Amino acid sequence: MDRYDLRPGEVAVVLPESFDAELYFIGRIRTPWMRREDCPKNARESPSVCTIEVDERWAQALNDIETCSHLLVLYWMDQARRDLVIQAPRHYETARGTFSLRSPVRPNPIAASVARLIKRQGRRLSVIGLDCRDGTPLLDIKPYYASLDAEPQAVVGRPGSDADQR
Amino acid sequence: MDRYDLRPGEVAVVLPESFDAELYFIGRIRTPWMRREDCPKNARESPSVCTIEVDERWAQALNDIETCSHLLVLYWMDQARRDLVIQAPRHYETARGTFSLRSPVRPNPIAASVARLIKRQGRRLSVIGLDCRDGTPLLDIKPYYASLDAEPQAVVGRPGSDADQR
Repeated sequence: MDRYDLRPGEVAVVLPESFDAELYFIGRIRTPWMRREDCPKNARESPSVCTIEVDERWAQALNDIETCSHLLVLYWMDQARRDLVIQAPRHYETARGTFSLRSPVRPNPIAASVARLIKRQGRRLSVIGLDCRDGTPLLDIKPYYASLDAEPQAVVGRPGSDADQR
Repeated sequence: MDRYDLRPGEVAVVLPESFDAELYFIGRIRTPWMRREDCPKNARESPSVCTIEVDERWAQALNDIETCSHLLVLYWMDQARRDLVIQAPRHYETARGTFSLRSPVRPNPIAASVARLIKRQGRRLSVIGLDCRDGTPLLDIKPYYASLDAEPQAVVGRPGSDADQR
């Protein structure tokens, strides 16, 4: 977690001296993956069923969740460093800006994943589509609206390409 | 922001005594809407161009963002109360659980919106698809991947329906 761990091309900044807002962990995500290295590279490639366990305090907030086929799940990547603005992930040829990567390393390490809801049992949701470590802290669950959230035409290009060339 | 402001059917819980993680505001979102009441009900209904202004510290993290046609933008709904588990929004007939609503009122008031990237000028991004108040704190920008994030078949039903009936 320090500057000496940078890969070639990576750039770190000095983090702000203070924080601006605070989060509650509202539950945990149970998955088959105990270490970050074990997690699937792409959640869509994994058929594994994971379990979202919501804390008792927030259980009533799950009312009507069965009406949702898909959920937008926000969770906290608690092992990620926060100071990299340019990163060189292993599977990329070149370094890229943090905001054009889905890497957990970012100023606020909040992950957003679309999960298919399989089953609800009390305050436990069985879902497909998550790829995080077992025990990952849960931040939020939202209903996924195709009308708001689905952009099947969206593209992410390589550096050097841009919107004008598409 | 207290229990006396509850609408019929709404339920509030006692918030935890302490927080679990902390956030940096990394920029601001400039929009035409000065008050929450002025914001469009559905961002997809608004053609307004908004501007994401990223703070100087994080500017390099925007490298290569031009390669993305769409972005997943996370921001902080700083005026929302956090203690409601059942809510009765004005445009709904019945109260629903917080996690089956997109209301800003939730334990962690993080909004997630898909925005179309129109133009980048330095650390300013012109986008379409946001519906927040002017000055809203920015938390994160992610590339939107159709392969990960688009679920055009997703549905959200009414209470009483459930996944088995679809």
